[in-house]
Amino acid sequence: MGATYELAQFIVETQVNELPDDAVHEAKRCLINFLGVALYASRDPSLGILLGAFQEEGGKPRATIVGTGVRTTLLNAALANGYLGHLEDYDDTHFPTVIHVSSPVFPAILGPAETLGISGMEFLGAFVLGFEAAAHIGLAIHPAHYDLGWHITGTVGCFGAAAAAGKVLGLDTQQMIYALGAAGTQAAGVREVFGSMSKPLHAGRAAQSGLLAAILASKGFTSTTQILEGRRGFCQVLSGKFDLSKVTEGLGKSYELHNNGLKPYACGVVNHPLIDAMVHLRNEAKVRPGEVLSIQARVSPLVIELVNLRHPKVGLESKFSIHHCCAVALVDGAAYPDQFTDARVKDPAIIALRDKVELTSDPSIKEDQVTVRVNLADGRSLERHIEHANGAPKNPMTDAQVEEKFRVLAERTLPKKRVDQLVDTLWNLERIADMSNLTPLLSRRRRG
Amino acid sequence: MGATYELAQFIVETQVNELPDDAVHEAKRCLINFLGVALYASRDPSLGILLGAFQEEGGKPRATIVGTGVRTTLLNAALANGYLGHLEDYDDTHFPTVIHVSSPVFPAILGPAETLGISGMEFLGAFVLGFEAAAHIGLAIHPAHYDLGWHITGTVGCFGAAAAAGKVLGLDTQQMIYALGAAGTQAAGVREVFGSMSKPLHAGRAAQSGLLAAILASKGFTSTTQILEGRRGFCQVLSGKFDLSKVTEGLGKSYELHNNGLKPYACGVVNHPLIDAMVHLRNEAKVRPGEVLSIQARVSPLVIELVNLRHPKVGLESKFSIHHCCAVALVDGAAYPDQFTDARVKDPAIIALRDKVELTSDPSIKEDQVTVRVNLADGRSLERHIEHANGAPKNPMTDAQVEEKFRVLAERTLPKKRVDQLVDTLWNLERIADMSNLTPLLSRRRRG
Repeated sequence: MGATYELAQFIVETQVNELPDDAVHEAKRCLINFLGVALYASRDPSLGILLGAFQEEGGKPRATIVGTGVRTTLLNAALANGYLGHLEDYDDTHFPTVIHVSSPVFPAILGPAETLGISGMEFLGAFVLGFEAAAHIGLAIHPAHYDLGWHITGTVGCFGAAAAAGKVLGLDTQQMIYALGAAGTQAAGVREVFGSMSKPLHAGRAAQSGLLAAILASKGFTSTTQILEGRRGFCQVLSGKFDLSKVTEGLGKSYELHNNGLKPYACGVVNHPLIDAMVHLRNEAKVRPGEVLSIQARVSPLVIELVNLRHPKVGLESKFSIHHCCAVALVDGAAYPDQFTDARVKDPAIIALRDKVELTSDPSIKEDQVTVRVNLADGRSLERHIEHANGAPKNPMTDAQVEEKFRVLAERTLPKKRVDQLVDTLWNLERIADMSNLTPLLSRRRRG
Repeated sequence: MGATYELAQFIVETQVNELPDDAVHEAKRCLINFLGVALYASRDPSLGILLGAFQEEGGKPRATIVGTGVRTTLLNAALANGYLGHLEDYDDTHFPTVIHVSSPVFPAILGPAETLGISGMEFLGAFVLGFEAAAHIGLAIHPAHYDLGWHITGTVGCFGAAAAAGKVLGLDTQQMIYALGAAGTQAAGVREVFGSMSKPLHAGRAAQSGLLAAILASKGFTSTTQILEGRRGFCQVLSGKFDLSKVTEGLGKSYELHNNGLKPYACGVVNHPLIDAMVHLRNEAKVRPGEVLSIQARVSPLVIELVNLRHPKVGLESKFSIHHCCAVALVDGAAYPDQFTDARVKDPAIIALRDKVELTSDPSIKEDQVTVRVNLADGRSLERHIEHANGAPKNPMTDAQVEEKFRVLAERTLPKKRVDQLVDTLWNLERIADMSNLTPLLSRRRRG
């Protein structure tokens, strides 16, 4: 049997209550991270464009759009929630393939979970299987696929969405094969649109395409039985170079979910090691901004190439300024979206610190590393080396960090009391009997 | 300015009432052909799968699904009508690129035309511009794109749909650029799914993706400004080999619409020359099946490779039998879907004739040619040579043939009186003030 059949069989035959506890726990962390980011993003005016289109079209209120007072069709909600998950570039990353898996996969099953009232454990299990499907297909085609110019979150995301949604809908193996086929032939998204609203559209459309494929397959829709390995199939056409053995290698034995990383900071990953170091110096060595004479950082050459900008002018630009990242990390001990606002860019304390940052490009420093020396007014000189930045699979965010990130982001959209309730519910999701009890907590009443 | 800008500007700035009469007339022929095929296809049970999904989701009844009693959302109707247009493989073909343009483009504007009540001339003009957009982009990437394994109707169809829908929605040039960007980054569809329901899904999804892109762009959604020429854009990522000059070459001076062909017969094109010859012999030389001793056909080697099947067992198989095609053409003078039913396959008169067909492969005979000799009981021997099969741009179907095809197909779904009314309305479409007067005529009351 071919790769498509074996993958479909794995998704269909794996019992969610047999999944390892640590995979289920990781799924919860992904969900908390996804929802925090989506709740924060739901305040972005661009969401109104999608909501406007949905309102004209109408539809039964079946599924919640995170952070809004809107319930809409399953397919509309999948589009909007996928868009929200990826809008801030603050979602998770499967490090070996750079797929942002949660943004296409959770939105494909949040609506069906709400409509069907499945259990939290079924929901998390479907995510784990969808994640593994996407990650394994990604492994088979990476890096050739990405290098061609594809946005792998948009393309491979379709498979993850179809696999997870198909699991929730209870597809049999033949139906799952067709769902993967119908999803894979909708796979789309080129990197040329990066920097525009069309980038997060990829995640939304992938969620929707995968869900549509699963719904149609559940009703008898047909497709190829060889979307992955076929001569005119996904791997050949969208990659050319690929290794089909990766699709099934280790499937169900080890979990790619453990190679997934959550982002602690709301900016490009090359900034993360220095932010880590400055947060340590602030919280553990109790360095105060006013006593700093200079900050000497030995950084990866990539830092110089990508984020060497001493004085950004506006908030968006500050995400690409290592000097700004360094300053807010020392002053605020954080790099949440609030640290990248226009106001924060213009803060005199931050400006003063940015002027004290000195960079040295060092090819021996890897992308997730930094060595920094801070010289203080009292003559002391403190050094910190970061071996792996926080958020990478080798140094994952702690559960407490994941929860704090969620609270900071969610409280921009929901009242604190609701956020408390959500935190409690989400950490115990595998014991929730009916997912339709969760989704109302994600809804924000519209004002006016 | 780049190719994307120039194409967008052409679509936006061309006034529909300045389009050449012959292009508008060709658009009407395309519409009549598209609607006939879609009306016929609307009886296929697989449409019920889509309708079932739509019913669960609900939505405002804004747009008619051809041949049904269903009105649904613009985006659902675009998906279903695109599916219907391509389901029977009986739609039109832009010969230089093998794009089936009508199936993604008309469905993207039928709904908006109905909702907005635009004029017939605006509708036809939007189609012409959408057709030119798709055809010109296709010319830029063909044949490398198709050879890679892409179904060009699904991919390039997105651009045609966005261009036409954007014209109907009145986008300005900047919005049109973004609509093309958002459409192109949704382009999808691999040839591996040929032979399944996922093939016509490509046309439906292209119609829907293009329409979605145009709707979002009309509300302020952004994308790349260089979807065609960008380093990680459509042409580079989905083709690799391309010639951007084709996008704008001759734009507005000559019309690719004149390189479009309508299919007179409901089977693969390699059968068409022999069908042509037999219809001529029947109608002009008055050859009767009972007097035929043998039929000796010199055919392109491709005929032997693809359709050399003397006795098909079922209707679907008979489309791949040159012997069957030859027989029905002489007996019925036609090769409509009715000639490819299980019953027709088992007809003794047809079986007898199939046994009299003798094929000779001749490399000097081109794919759209045939030379046939019919030997009769009275000793006569008649020969016919077809230089270009009917339906190709060099030998287009006459308006009368287009109308007859429409009548035969439409009368399977609608009462004859309604078909008469449609024929009259469609040939005069450029004089219709409000397209919402047309669409109710395409609707069939559901029984039971």
